[in-house]
Amino acid sequence: MHRSRVYAILIDAPEAEAARSTAFWSAALGVPAQPVPSEPQFITLHEALPGLVTAVQVVDDAPRFHLDFETDDVEAETARLLALGATQVARWQECRVLRVPGGHLVCVLPVESPPEFFDAHARTWP
Amino acid sequence: MHRSRVYAILIDAPEAEAARSTAFWSAALGVPAQPVPSEPQFITLHEALPGLVTAVQVVDDAPRFHLDFETDDVEAETARLLALGATQVARWQECRVLRVPGGHLVCVLPVESPPEFFDAHARTWP
Repeated sequence: MHRSRVYAILIDAPEAEAARSTAFWSAALGVPAQPVPSEPQFITLHEALPGLVTAVQVVDDAPRFHLDFETDDVEAETARLLALGATQVARWQECRVLRVPGGHLVCVLPVESPPEFFDAHARTWP
Repeated sequence: MHRSRVYAILIDAPEAEAARSTAFWSAALGVPAQPVPSEPQFITLHEALPGLVTAVQVVDDAPRFHLDFETDDVEAETARLLALGATQVARWQECRVLRVPGGHLVCVLPVESPPEFFDAHARTWP
């Protein structure tokens, strides 16, 4: 058994557009934009959505949204999603980037939430 | 003054992929997929995310995610987002489709949530 939950919605913005994108979303959602010091490609939109981390991610690619799944077992969660028809398109540190049926991107990453929050909200998979 | 909130995340799926996309997301999130009888282009993923409607929307376009903003004043909310740099790209019934700085799509639509839920969670804009 392992557990997972949707952890975050990422607003992927091309580098040249990232500052404009961040300024827009911060004002549109009425929340402060906070750079993540250790990970300069992320700018968090603090408490923009309930129970879901929201952030701009600077990408060297087209604009898009993607969802992050956090899990206590990256291998098992990746295998679960692959069995449902996803394909792995990249691996970055401990994260796996998957293209899922329909063409959307998701990432699978180790648990980022506080343990008690993850315990309260994660689904358990056989 | 008017109010708005992020109401929904839409998983836009090309028609040819919509059934596969719906099956994937229903299984991946562990929730039932429920067609919306009056609006056949929407398939709701029931209670997939906290406080946010999640649905597959069948589109005649590339796969993408988009966000819906619900508001008690579509004109005022559209004007607010245009002033922040968005451009209107389409109008569909009472909804406005905007491309926002960075290149992402959002829709602005009249309040869909129960009034007391909207009142409790919407932001007020001057």
